[in-house]
Amino acid sequence: MCQLMGMSANVPTDARFSFTGLVERAGRTDIHKDGWGITFYQGKGVQEFRDLKAGSDCDVANFLKLQCIKSDIVISHIRQANVGALTLENTHPFRRELWGENWTFAHNGQLKDIHSILPLGRFIPIGTTDSEHIFCWLLDQIEQAFPTRPEDPTQLYDFIYAKRQQLHEFDVCNFLLSDGHALIAHCSNNLHWVTRRAPFGPALLKDIQVSVDFSQETTPNDVVTVLATQPLTTNETWEKMQPGQMVVFVDGELIKLYQ
Amino acid sequence: MCQLMGMSANVPTDARFSFTGLVERAGRTDIHKDGWGITFYQGKGVQEFRDLKAGSDCDVANFLKLQCIKSDIVISHIRQANVGALTLENTHPFRRELWGENWTFAHNGQLKDIHSILPLGRFIPIGTTDSEHIFCWLLDQIEQAFPTRPEDPTQLYDFIYAKRQQLHEFDVCNFLLSDGHALIAHCSNNLHWVTRRAPFGPALLKDIQVSVDFSQETTPNDVVTVLATQPLTTNETWEKMQPGQMVVFVDGELIKLYQ
Repeated sequence: MCQLMGMSANVPTDARFSFTGLVERAGRTDIHKDGWGITFYQGKGVQEFRDLKAGSDCDVANFLKLQCIKSDIVISHIRQANVGALTLENTHPFRRELWGENWTFAHNGQLKDIHSILPLGRFIPIGTTDSEHIFCWLLDQIEQAFPTRPEDPTQLYDFIYAKRQQLHEFDVCNFLLSDGHALIAHCSNNLHWVTRRAPFGPALLKDIQVSVDFSQETTPNDVVTVLATQPLTTNETWEKMQPGQMVVFVDGELIKLYQ
Repeated sequence: MCQLMGMSANVPTDARFSFTGLVERAGRTDIHKDGWGITFYQGKGVQEFRDLKAGSDCDVANFLKLQCIKSDIVISHIRQANVGALTLENTHPFRRELWGENWTFAHNGQLKDIHSILPLGRFIPIGTTDSEHIFCWLLDQIEQAFPTRPEDPTQLYDFIYAKRQQLHEFDVCNFLLSDGHALIAHCSNNLHWVTRRAPFGPALLKDIQVSVDFSQETTPNDVVTVLATQPLTTNETWEKMQPGQMVVFVDGELIKLYQ
């Protein structure tokens, strides 16, 4: 299995506090040491980092913990390989272009033999994971339904919610998905989120002795939501998602809850 | 304008010597300071790094100069923005998936108003550069001609050579392109390459006082070709490409020269 971390914010926000907690689970406090990746959106563009080494003991990850990269939407993943070899092409997040937009996907779960069930269209997996297969399938389904981006994004979210039912019924499929506008998260069994807004206070990571006082880092109008497979902090109340729920965050705010 | 750097090797090879020379031109010895990017292939997968800061004064670039990332094919680019704003989505190299493979493209030149001339298909630019537009156009042309990867890759190279004629006739279009198998380079006016093989010797960068003794870093069977807009070293003989030439390197070896 794997673990996920995502962030949606209404101002470009530094995600390294959450990333620092996540990558501890990549070999130190947990076993997800088969590579990791992180995608930072800045408008339509992305900056991505990935490596095959364990996130808890990796030069690139250690470097990122020191970098203040401000982003609107972040998707990160630490891997424990089950389906697919330990290669870069099997490292999440995956990325494709649809409608001239960067789509990013990371998955936690297992959908064994899904390859033989979900037909592919024009998006072809580069690696051999079930995760990339379902991403390619989902993008193709979206494109078939919407050759161009629908004016009302709710139509898109509704469609994704309907489609992910097939995955949810099949097996474990927690995922984070973004088109650069929204951060969409689906829970099969393990996904949590917390929204931080004024008045901001201190937060303490669960996996390593690191704390931050967000009142020093934010302005009163900031809204930042962080999602993670398991809560990353010990002194905040994380919302535990229920199996089958899907949430859509835009600018840090929950704009749609499907259940 | 911009500058390009590429590498093709028969063993995973550390490209940081060339990268170190290139990014000096990104704000110190030359003016290409509007962001930079580098894509490292490891088999089918890629590790990429990019940033909007000037490569000569950028934490991510400085970090990479210290990292030994071994790769078969590398494409790197330093940008001097002319068409398209200073945004991440306008930063080269660009990447798309075709036939379940990572295709990467970086461009030096200017093809003003090419948007109105070359029709797009299913690959849509995310940014606003002429460069990404021609990459999307070229991939679509390739896919229309070859719905699946041709068994004989020479057919593919011949096709790309025929297609790039339209770009070459239009305006300045030096580019590096890879599908993870070959490194393809086209010269409109400025592109050089050098192949290093046994007996290896020392090399001295042109833009900064850095040298390496490749005899200490290689085995006798290694073959490594480096391409660059302008030669990166002072004590090696670089081949100057002629306008209209296209070269194809596989495993460091020149396998096809079109002229």
